[in-house]
Amino acid sequence: MAETSGILIKGGKVVNEDCSVIGDVYIENGKIIEVGRNLQIPAGVRIIDATDKLVIPGGIDTHTHMELAFMGTKAVDDFHIGTKVKKEMQTLTEEKGVNSFKMFMAYKDVFMLQDSELYAAFSQCKDIGAIAQVHAENGDLIAEGAKKMLSMGITGPEGHELCRPEEVEAEATQRAITIAHAVNCPLYVVHVMSKSAAKVVSNARRDGRVVFGEPIAAGLGTDGTHYWNEEWAHAASFVMGPPLRPDPSTPGYLMDLLANDDLSVTGTDNCTFSLCQKALGKDDFTKIPNGVNGVEDRMSVIWEKGVHSGKMDENRFVAVTSSNAAKIFNFYPQKGRIAKNSDADVVIWDPKMTRKISAKTHHQAVDYNIFEGMECHGVPVITISRGKVVYENGQLKVSPGIGRFIHRKPFAEFVYKRIRQREQVGKPTAVTRKPYKGKVISI
Amino acid sequence: MAETSGILIKGGKVVNEDCSVIGDVYIENGKIIEVGRNLQIPAGVRIIDATDKLVIPGGIDTHTHMELAFMGTKAVDDFHIGTKVKKEMQTLTEEKGVNSFKMFMAYKDVFMLQDSELYAAFSQCKDIGAIAQVHAENGDLIAEGAKKMLSMGITGPEGHELCRPEEVEAEATQRAITIAHAVNCPLYVVHVMSKSAAKVVSNARRDGRVVFGEPIAAGLGTDGTHYWNEEWAHAASFVMGPPLRPDPSTPGYLMDLLANDDLSVTGTDNCTFSLCQKALGKDDFTKIPNGVNGVEDRMSVIWEKGVHSGKMDENRFVAVTSSNAAKIFNFYPQKGRIAKNSDADVVIWDPKMTRKISAKTHHQAVDYNIFEGMECHGVPVITISRGKVVYENGQLKVSPGIGRFIHRKPFAEFVYKRIRQREQVGKPTAVTRKPYKGKVISI
Amino acid sequence: MAETSGILIKGGKVVNEDCSVIGDVYIENGKIIEVGRNLQIPAGVRIIDATDKLVIPGGIDTHTHMELAFMGTKAVDDFHIGTKVKKEMQTLTEEKGVNSFKMFMAYKDVFMLQDSELYAAFSQCKDIGAIAQVHAENGDLIAEGAKKMLSMGITGPEGHELCRPEEVEAEATQRAITIAHAVNCPLYVVHVMSKSAAKVVSNARRDGRVVFGEPIAAGLGTDGTHYWNEEWAHAASFVMGPPLRPDPSTPGYLMDLLANDDLSVTGTDNCTFSLCQKALGKDDFTKIPNGVNGVEDRMSVIWEKGVHSGKMDENRFVAVTSSNAAKIFNFYPQKGRIAKNSDADVVIWDPKMTRKISAKTHHQAVDYNIFEGMECHGVPVITISRGKVVYENGQLKVSPGIGRFIHRKPFAEFVYKRIRQREQVGKPTAVTRKPYKGKVISI
Amino acid sequence: MAETSGILIKGGKVVNEDCSVIGDVYIENGKIIEVGRNLQIPAGVRIIDATDKLVIPGGIDTHTHMELAFMGTKAVDDFHIGTKVKKEMQTLTEEKGVNSFKMFMAYKDVFMLQDSELYAAFSQCKDIGAIAQVHAENGDLIAEGAKKMLSMGITGPEGHELCRPEEVEAEATQRAITIAHAVNCPLYVVHVMSKSAAKVVSNARRDGRVVFGEPIAAGLGTDGTHYWNEEWAHAASFVMGPPLRPDPSTPGYLMDLLANDDLSVTGTDNCTFSLCQKALGKDDFTKIPNGVNGVEDRMSVIWEKGVHSGKMDENRFVAVTSSNAAKIFNFYPQKGRIAKNSDADVVIWDPKMTRKISAKTHHQAVDYNIFEGMECHGVPVITISRGKVVYENGQLKVSPGIGRFIHRKPFAEFVYKRIRQREQVGKPTAVTRKPYKGKVISI
Repeated sequence: MAETSGILIKGGKVVNEDCSVIGDVYIENGKIIEVGRNLQIPAGVRIIDATDKLVIPGGIDTHTHMELAFMGTKAVDDFHIGTKVKKEMQTLTEEKGVNSFKMFMAYKDVFMLQDSELYAAFSQCKDIGAIAQVHAENGDLIAEGAKKMLSMGITGPEGHELCRPEEVEAEATQRAITIAHAVNCPLYVVHVMSKSAAKVVSNARRDGRVVFGEPIAAGLGTDGTHYWNEEWAHAASFVMGPPLRPDPSTPGYLMDLLANDDLSVTGTDNCTFSLCQKALGKDDFTKIPNGVNGVEDRMSVIWEKGVHSGKMDENRFVAVTSSNAAKIFNFYPQKGRIAKNSDADVVIWDPKMTRKISAKTHHQAVDYNIFEGMECHGVPVITISRGKVVYENGQLKVSPGIGRFIHRKPFAEFVYKRIRQREQVGKPTAVTRKPYKGKVISI
Repeated sequence: MAETSGILIKGGKVVNEDCSVIGDVYIENGKIIEVGRNLQIPAGVRIIDATDKLVIPGGIDTHTHMELAFMGTKAVDDFHIGTKVKKEMQTLTEEKGVNSFKMFMAYKDVFMLQDSELYAAFSQCKDIGAIAQVHAENGDLIAEGAKKMLSMGITGPEGHELCRPEEVEAEATQRAITIAHAVNCPLYVVHVMSKSAAKVVSNARRDGRVVFGEPIAAGLGTDGTHYWNEEWAHAASFVMGPPLRPDPSTPGYLMDLLANDDLSVTGTDNCTFSLCQKALGKDDFTKIPNGVNGVEDRMSVIWEKGVHSGKMDENRFVAVTSSNAAKIFNFYPQKGRIAKNSDADVVIWDPKMTRKISAKTHHQAVDYNIFEGMECHGVPVITISRGKVVYENGQLKVSPGIGRFIHRKPFAEFVYKRIRQREQVGKPTAVTRKPYKGKVISI
Repeated sequence: MAETSGILIKGGKVVNEDCSVIGDVYIENGKIIEVGRNLQIPAGVRIIDATDKLVIPGGIDTHTHMELAFMGTKAVDDFHIGTKVKKEMQTLTEEKGVNSFKMFMAYKDVFMLQDSELYAAFSQCKDIGAIAQVHAENGDLIAEGAKKMLSMGITGPEGHELCRPEEVEAEATQRAITIAHAVNCPLYVVHVMSKSAAKVVSNARRDGRVVFGEPIAAGLGTDGTHYWNEEWAHAASFVMGPPLRPDPSTPGYLMDLLANDDLSVTGTDNCTFSLCQKALGKDDFTKIPNGVNGVEDRMSVIWEKGVHSGKMDENRFVAVTSSNAAKIFNFYPQKGRIAKNSDADVVIWDPKMTRKISAKTHHQAVDYNIFEGMECHGVPVITISRGKVVYENGQLKVSPGIGRFIHRKPFAEFVYKRIRQREQVGKPTAVTRKPYKGKVISI
Repeated sequence: MAETSGILIKGGKVVNEDCSVIGDVYIENGKIIEVGRNLQIPAGVRIIDATDKLVIPGGIDTHTHMELAFMGTKAVDDFHIGTKVKKEMQTLTEEKGVNSFKMFMAYKDVFMLQDSELYAAFSQCKDIGAIAQVHAENGDLIAEGAKKMLSMGITGPEGHELCRPEEVEAEATQRAITIAHAVNCPLYVVHVMSKSAAKVVSNARRDGRVVFGEPIAAGLGTDGTHYWNEEWAHAASFVMGPPLRPDPSTPGYLMDLLANDDLSVTGTDNCTFSLCQKALGKDDFTKIPNGVNGVEDRMSVIWEKGVHSGKMDENRFVAVTSSNAAKIFNFYPQKGRIAKNSDADVVIWDPKMTRKISAKTHHQAVDYNIFEGMECHGVPVITISRGKVVYENGQLKVSPGIGRFIHRKPFAEFVYKRIRQREQVGKPTAVTRKPYKGKVISI
């Protein structure tokens, strides 16, 4: 069957997070069978010449709301949790292979959890070994801010950013980290969008907190000045939560932190709406559906802004697009590494080729692209997913249903090893004292 | 009558926040009549020789829970507000001369306000021109932390600090500042007790936030290692909220920030309980009444740790013990300055004299002193309150009821001038756009 | 004579650094005779109606290279010192009333001092009670950077900034502070031009260093993007050292720090060259004479960007344009305060009037203005210098030679009080040990 | 020959920097032949049971002055360079396999380089692809400080720290990074000893600088309070440059940064002197030979303070003791990884065993141990170097001369990939302008 036919990727530069080496990669039955020089392979397998190309692990989009991730592997689903899910969380983890849960500090009266609820949810995550994810924005302040903007007659997309400025994100990020630390629970902050929130994550990591920050393609590739664009449709297409920031130095700053492992992984928070859908909020920015494109261009954007700019090397690129996600969500090195026995999720990447991003040529259904016109060095030429070529020569070759949920085990070592050690050695102890014998008076 | 008799303070170094000059101070009817050299005065007035002494404005304790402040002027009362006080707040300000309100982020199920309630209270403060004060600790985390400590068998005073470590304070401080900024309301953070909370305040000030941080004598003069003292009574006497911090570099750090105007004023949060009262919590630290002494020794402690150490000069000492409080609470230069027409609240200070703080010699009723044994350079020799000597030769000369509430006006310029200017020039405006004409589709 | 004739400034708002009050100011013989309400004055004195105007202390430009400062008082001269000036420094201070000296870390092979020379000069400053001023840029790096830019064919004004980016300034600032602290000498950093250098100063102050940072009008009112202007003459007119910074958020950042007392005083470093003089460097940016205008517009620029924007209030404005300089250079309250006995240097300021800055209307000889087109709220209407009106109705009324050098005493209290205290209490002491009795072996 | 005999390490947990897996490691002829489960091996090979033990790459001590490194591989030699070595540097790199050079900012009049010399040396390093290493302390300030201390009668070891406090280290670190960045040269800061210097390195990395900081075992395991020990011999044994810091929170802080990849690798700067040699400085701390032990205990100290404490996991331990050094000095994955084809440098580590460090039992010649009495969890049980067991059952089995210099290639990808990319894309370009046609006047 198709599944069994082998593929030899020949002469490429195999890039893992720790180093790059020239070599061949032989694939069979959805797995990488061997990596090395001059591999002996059976006759009749397809040979792909990867000379002068990079052979990298398939990207893992940590944060998408689609049913099917385009390039690589679908990793994370949101299981929005309320406050009385304790039992369900355990079941999902033990029986269904879900090892992460997302909590909201925004969206008041809908998803928003109070601090005591976050405390409870984080405690449960820690007990069952799951990753607690948070959307960190202060929902109360957003609600008040939105009212204020509308009352001032600001109804356009610029109001979206004005009612939830970056300190609203930074505050919630700090709070989530503080609560998680009180619980001794690892924390994963989704879509870190601002310099100040990113700094909060970075500083917490320096203090030894087990916290991971995820910038997304939109935040790394563009900025919030677009909300002030004079064309409503243009401005609206950038609406997402938390918003992009008007400070134009934000993307470069986030990329610096990503390069330096202050931020850990990249997602897209891909959640696209057509312009006609966005238009629901044409008279009131609070009604614009939140979401931007990104999944298709994520790797190109990160390569362009990260690697081509010289901020990170190709190995760090692999770490932030693939390996770190695999470690955090506990399927490394099955995924996230080009190595013997790993899943055959591979991208062949041409670092010299260039392309221009445009809504005219992209594969997504939406009619705009927030990266419109960006010149990208570095283009994926072939994508292999579990041993099968799914993209080649600019053509998608995916059949519906090829995305597959990966059963993930709890207590990822990358995340929980330190946590458990601290649990053992870090417990405070009571001071030994003689009992107090004096008088006691009420006040 | 006694009120009208004059006092001439002769030849001292008159210290105000901006400079010091050698001169005489003449007092009559509770007011300073003149400051200068070789003043002509009526016969028969009392002359106090202040040669080689400092003549400084009476200390204003911004934060005491006593009925009568010892040294100088009672400035701030706590009007603990709930969530539906809007009307009462206005009445108190307009009719009763109360221009500050204190809100709690700690003490869950008792005083603690939710973020949306803080938002409302801050909005009201701003509308009426009052100072919003906060006790900044995350009450949810304290409640959970206390449960955890008790469940681990930690029942002694060390549990008090362990259940509310400094990041619980820093988090709430950051949150309060963020909410206040969303409202464009000035904020006053009472009893800043930790390095991290102090840093939050300092950084906010650098960013232009109108926020004032108040360290207290306890936090500037001692630290939280005492909670681990083997004698229960000793440890318990230091229990207050937020707690003193076990990091012994905390007091010096707070003093550096106070010297540098990152922190603004000093209080005591004086609220003393006898040992027998403290003993209510002998088997459970959550039941130890929170409060320490401090009001009597505040100025000596700050002089010793601040001025004698070389961290601040005598003028900054006056600013942080007196002038800044008078400005913030809107009775400067009536109080807080030695100048013509100011109230005759004066301390004659001997910077060369020394004394040792001890419960044996202090004037307060409590049977311990958290500064026990501290050698202090700098001693007040005479204290004059509204023109009358109330302390002299180590003797209090106060008759009950001499403390007087000062009617304060709202909208202190020191606090509100910038706020109002920003209100005028800082308003965002809507982008002008052509209406969106396209299709609209529901999602 | 003219000198003796009095002036009554009536009904203005008298603004000092600590507070503002409505009142009259009576001036005679170059001095302020009285400040108060309804002053009784001799007949025949000129009365200036200052209703709805501010009456503020004359600005003190801490940093100008002109012979005559326009608005207020000339304060600081540069006495560029080499390395063997010890004797001359002492003479200048004791006999000539010079109490500050400026050292260069830039201008290699011309003025630049090595670290050991700085150490010696700072030591001498401290011994004689003078203020050590530094131009903080790493001269070696500038020299290398300039060579590199020219070798790359970058000869225009943009090369001026590219060869001395802000970290070259920040590094030298850090170094100067470290050396000064090793000596326990106060330090004054002239023309702080970048965010990173300003942060270095601010952080040092938090750590208790006695250091003062001086931003200048150019750095507070405009930025370095002009170096990339396509018109050479435009770009060249902004050339000064250290350069303005291309990051457009720099001026706002510096103003925030100035408002918050992280930076202390403002100057202009006024040193103007005509375009024809600037043109000396038309083919080589290293030959463009360094210097920009500023002295005339300093107060308007700071008012506009500082007070009108809501970043600081009018009292802080007085502090940073006048009082702090007077304190640092040791002639406060003779200057820098509107008070009885102070010098009659007064500006009557109309906060409601506006004007547009332009080279067409300014009083300086140069043919361009770096603030061209800036709309300023807040205009000086009358300036009085030592009791005489020198500017009124848009007309200068200064006769040549009216600028007067002020004999200044060393050991300014504002600067040296803490230094001397630390000297007394901060000395390390040797550990007492028994002598080592063992064997000693050479290596 | 002995060289060819194989070793099978069976059933251990193989720990690499990216993950840990249970498996066997088969070694032959000094190389790792295979890693996996149930390996088929020839008869007669030695089998080491590693059940419940960790199998980790041999430690690489980046910074030792011994002829033979005990545990693992000798990596770095100091080639102290003067200012005219350009030619020799190239020769050493191209012909001798030396790819790092160490420059001194301390030791005035001996090794100390001026800034312009550092600039030249860094430029040369970059041209030939070498790693520039710096000993970062301000030599001028140390020289002055030492004179001052001696003049104050402070002759004991405490003077060693007092004359070179941590800001002397931090300043030089900042300066070195600034100079290296001006050159676009990677930088390696040896023996980062203080919180402030570590913060400088960390912040530079956040800003995208290619800089690596190396804390050493002494700095991670003990502190500078020992310089104040009343016994001279005790105090003197801790003397090294830069000194250990008296702030007791330093080691934990450095470890946090090391865990978080703000600092990169660990060394020992091992350079031991006997007490009799130290005694050369018994009357003058400047004559105490600088150097402490550490090489033997490095891994135990880092495990105890880093892994056992829960600050880092076993994978990060491998990174900081081995893999990162191998990457920086360009022999990864030949060294620094347990993988097929890598050198057989392996340590079998028992994470459950404990031992107490003591001069009585260590293998070094010196008669004291700065870690005396430290209880360590985690003990190496067998050490294999290039395929041969060199340590087992507490016994060294090394024959003289087994240490071997490794020829290293320049332009390590880990270090230079970003540097070269920036060189290509980051060049500034000149603004295109019409020539200036106006008059030119000299000044």
